[in-house]
Amino acid sequence: MSRAASAATKPPNGAETLLRAAVDAGLEVCFANPGTSEMHFVSAIDSVSANTAGIKGGLRAVLGLHETVCSGAADGYARMTRRPALTLLHLGPGLANGLANLHNARRAGTPVVNLVGDMATWHKAADPLLNSDIGALAAAVSCHTHTCQPGENLSAAMAAAVAATAIGGEGASQAAGGSRVATLIVPHDLSWERGNDTATEANPVGSGTSGPAAHAPAALPHSQHSIAAPAPGLPAGAQRFVREAAAALKACPRGKAALYIGGRAALAEGEALLSCGRIAAATGAALLCENAFARLDRGAGLPDVQRLPYFPQDAAAELAKYELLLLLDARPPVANFGYEGGPSRLVTLPEEAVWEFDSGLVDLPAALRLLAEELGAAGITPGVNCRGTFCSPSRPPVPTGRLTAAALCQAVAALQPAGAVVVDESLTSGGSYFSVSRGCPQFSHLTLTGGAIGAGIPLTVGAAVACPDRTVINLQADGSAMYSLQGLWTQAREQLRVVTVICANRSYAILKVEQAKQRITLSNGKASRALTDLGSPALDWVSLAQGMGVPASRATTCEELVAALRTAMQRQGPSLVEAVL
Amino acid sequence: MSRAASAATKPPNGAETLLRAAVDAGLEVCFANPGTSEMHFVSAIDSVSANTAGIKGGLRAVLGLHETVCSGAADGYARMTRRPALTLLHLGPGLANGLANLHNARRAGTPVVNLVGDMATWHKAADPLLNSDIGALAAAVSCHTHTCQPGENLSAAMAAAVAATAIGGEGASQAAGGSRVATLIVPHDLSWERGNDTATEANPVGSGTSGPAAHAPAALPHSQHSIAAPAPGLPAGAQRFVREAAAALKACPRGKAALYIGGRAALAEGEALLSCGRIAAATGAALLCENAFARLDRGAGLPDVQRLPYFPQDAAAELAKYELLLLLDARPPVANFGYEGGPSRLVTLPEEAVWEFDSGLVDLPAALRLLAEELGAAGITPGVNCRGTFCSPSRPPVPTGRLTAAALCQAVAALQPAGAVVVDESLTSGGSYFSVSRGCPQFSHLTLTGGAIGAGIPLTVGAAVACPDRTVINLQADGSAMYSLQGLWTQAREQLRVVTVICANRSYAILKVEQAKQRITLSNGKASRALTDLGSPALDWVSLAQGMGVPASRATTCEELVAALRTAMQRQGPSLVEAVL
Repeated sequence: MSRAASAATKPPNGAETLLRAAVDAGLEVCFANPGTSEMHFVSAIDSVSANTAGIKGGLRAVLGLHETVCSGAADGYARMTRRPALTLLHLGPGLANGLANLHNARRAGTPVVNLVGDMATWHKAADPLLNSDIGALAAAVSCHTHTCQPGENLSAAMAAAVAATAIGGEGASQAAGGSRVATLIVPHDLSWERGNDTATEANPVGSGTSGPAAHAPAALPHSQHSIAAPAPGLPAGAQRFVREAAAALKACPRGKAALYIGGRAALAEGEALLSCGRIAAATGAALLCENAFARLDRGAGLPDVQRLPYFPQDAAAELAKYELLLLLDARPPVANFGYEGGPSRLVTLPEEAVWEFDSGLVDLPAALRLLAEELGAAGITPGVNCRGTFCSPSRPPVPTGRLTAAALCQAVAALQPAGAVVVDESLTSGGSYFSVSRGCPQFSHLTLTGGAIGAGIPLTVGAAVACPDRTVINLQADGSAMYSLQGLWTQAREQLRVVTVICANRSYAILKVEQAKQRITLSNGKASRALTDLGSPALDWVSLAQGMGVPASRATTCEELVAALRTAMQRQGPSLVEAVL
Repeated sequence: MSRAASAATKPPNGAETLLRAAVDAGLEVCFANPGTSEMHFVSAIDSVSANTAGIKGGLRAVLGLHETVCSGAADGYARMTRRPALTLLHLGPGLANGLANLHNARRAGTPVVNLVGDMATWHKAADPLLNSDIGALAAAVSCHTHTCQPGENLSAAMAAAVAATAIGGEGASQAAGGSRVATLIVPHDLSWERGNDTATEANPVGSGTSGPAAHAPAALPHSQHSIAAPAPGLPAGAQRFVREAAAALKACPRGKAALYIGGRAALAEGEALLSCGRIAAATGAALLCENAFARLDRGAGLPDVQRLPYFPQDAAAELAKYELLLLLDARPPVANFGYEGGPSRLVTLPEEAVWEFDSGLVDLPAALRLLAEELGAAGITPGVNCRGTFCSPSRPPVPTGRLTAAALCQAVAALQPAGAVVVDESLTSGGSYFSVSRGCPQFSHLTLTGGAIGAGIPLTVGAAVACPDRTVINLQADGSAMYSLQGLWTQAREQLRVVTVICANRSYAILKVEQAKQRITLSNGKASRALTDLGSPALDWVSLAQGMGVPASRATTCEELVAALRTAMQRQGPSLVEAVL
């Protein structure tokens, strides 16, 4: 009582002001690993939750035992809710630990707001041991990096950071490369000082902001047909663009056009994906999607989308079939790596044959609806007046006998419940899951968007926090799982409904494939074996999971895997199955 | 046979050239976590080892299952050998994962050479999904960041990187802030192309190098008395400086001078630390050392050094006792954090009372020997003609009964073998270890230099690779251990002689101390508890260790801990004891 009374009479401190502004902007979750310089935020989470109870519900604080869990969880949360979560990270090293998954979030185009402490303004020049250039690290992944200044309006600084993560926000600029990650750096003293919730003349809002800067990687030049409409709705220019695209699609020979789906075009929300299917059904255009997609809604009744192959020659061969390409919230596909002899960019069509519905287009679903209308496809209903193009309900049989990578994929597809969220960082082992799961009850499929391994377990944390009523299944390569196994503890702590399936091939199998791909000859192979083989000693995932409070079992046959999955799917909390391949 | 013959006729590829140059520069170990763009290096490690067998022994490749293990291991290796190891890291995300421990290495002043792959030169502009600004990340921790260029002499590029990590190298510049970390970025195509081992006119060596740049944090201004002598030996200017310092010491009232020891002054090598002790014995000067030291050689017969307290008020109170301060390869002490009301810098003496023997002084041991001679202290021999100042042999008794943090420290000090390497990331639990271990048989004590937690386990990997004949003991806080537990697997893989003692207090106890220190009042404490308590669920370190192939046991009493430690010290490979506090 007395504490509440004193809170009412004292102006809020900086940490309270910032978090209150975050709650006011609609943020609900903070994935945190704080340190000394963030302790006022820790306290403020309580104060914000207490003061806003019944109004906004306050902030839910979720602890990660390594920052990569926090940043990856924020990515997973936003892939499911389309809204940013906060991360709370400790200085430069804390941010550095979270960068790999922020890189993945940047490539996924998911909104994230990082709060990072810094040394007190009057102490920074003394270069204390934890001091570093946080802004330089943040700029590598952020569309908006801002260091709060003394006297600045902190509420406005938070509002600007959240706004930067919006569709059509700062991330829509070419220099930001599609990133919707914003980073707010808060010197220690600003978090404890009170009354910094109004701006002064001397320090207007945003004076310390650096937008997408020299550090942002070069963006691809946009194609000739490119729209970027930051205003909501579908402005006249966008409507004209859509009608011209429709005309081009109509003029294209049947089977010679392709829709290339990414971002929001891949989601059920706003019928975006349904519109894609309708357009394909009406025009005979192929439906392709990114190989690494942030989230693709899939299953019976949704469009049957073909995933672009991983290796560039295969992807280029697929793309070479088409004379017209619509890029729907997807960057033009390029090779993941430049192998000897190329290729680099995979789209070889002339610019006028590429229509880019880009990430700056605020109301993409409306644009896709209009496109469907223009093509007379708006009335197409899967299973009613349309055969093909959309997936029919079907399940593979439950596998039996020897446990292989393909059998593992089959088992998951055979058993996954309706509405599952499948977080797929299975790399080599999960190759067949995409096709074998096409007729499953509708589900959301999330993959590794930035290639920085270690995303899987953290993504499950965020997805499960976002969707407590859906079962989250993690198809998880063992080598990659080791990058962020700490996330299992958060699954247990929060009793998240996550079923982790470890694909235990006990090697960096992808690297062995890459060695062959690059035709690397080995002198004696000792180092090559040492650096790609994880079998000596074998990782015991049952022990690792149990060590963090997650019930676990091991499967060496299909029967064991199926039994373990059936048990796991029934649980309200997390569990893990190590599938020994 | 045929492969060797073909290797002899083909010019080496870029990866082979770079690694051969590293071996030629004396590097022997590569802590690696490679990816697609580093696969030619993986192969080249074999080829270099095969081709140089019997000459240099080639490169030993050690795999870490997360890059923080690699970078921390390189730090630990160099703290013990005083020579750099290579790391091999995959692109920007791989480097990002290693940054926290590179930050610690930077603060430790240890030499490290990072090899980081990049996209092929002709592919970078396509901005493939794993593309990022590697140089910006590297610059945050490196004194030397260089991206190899087509046609460049790659041997020379490697030689320059190694040279930059030398004492008196680029790290000696103020802008580099004492960092001896060098990062060489190698585009994928340069690693496979052959014949790039000679420079061309168009691309002279080093044309792409950026030295310590705008990203380097501001260095402290040097004191008035500052020497930086990059040439070996003790040049005339340095000799004059030492004689003046000796005169100042003589003129200072007894008990009013202090030697503040860091870096190489803290090592037995070159009798540097012995000289410090002789000077203190002769003059009555106090012997202080950094609170966070890279490596302090300690034990019976070595100087009895007092560690500067962690919290700034305590440290300032200690420093306020002195009128004259000699900084021996140590940065002037500053507060780790700026708390409300300060302080910031801890040395308040006038500039003329601070004598800085800085990290650029190549032959520091010679300078300390000369200083001892000038003070008539060269003949002082501990235990012979000197009482006090040096530690007498003594061991605490083996503890019994209830297992507390203090009892844990006592047990380790009672049992550690001669020549142990004690890697101490115990934070709150290990507070008493420093004093209770002062009379142990000589050992090396390593601590967390940059404050970026997660250094402990990786440091043990590097120290054990460097010193296979010494027992490495890790006093390890549980929360920090979770940051880099993957290193336990490398301990098992390489059968390293490491005894890990987990101080399992099941909380971020340091943060609770910090909350009290910062007088943070809590509204309801829910988030505060959620973000500092690790007890729900409790981490089971026995399971975690066994899951990575490290034998482990749990101790809940002193008797159990002592028995477990006795067994562990006998093993040739790794083991872990979870001490439940």
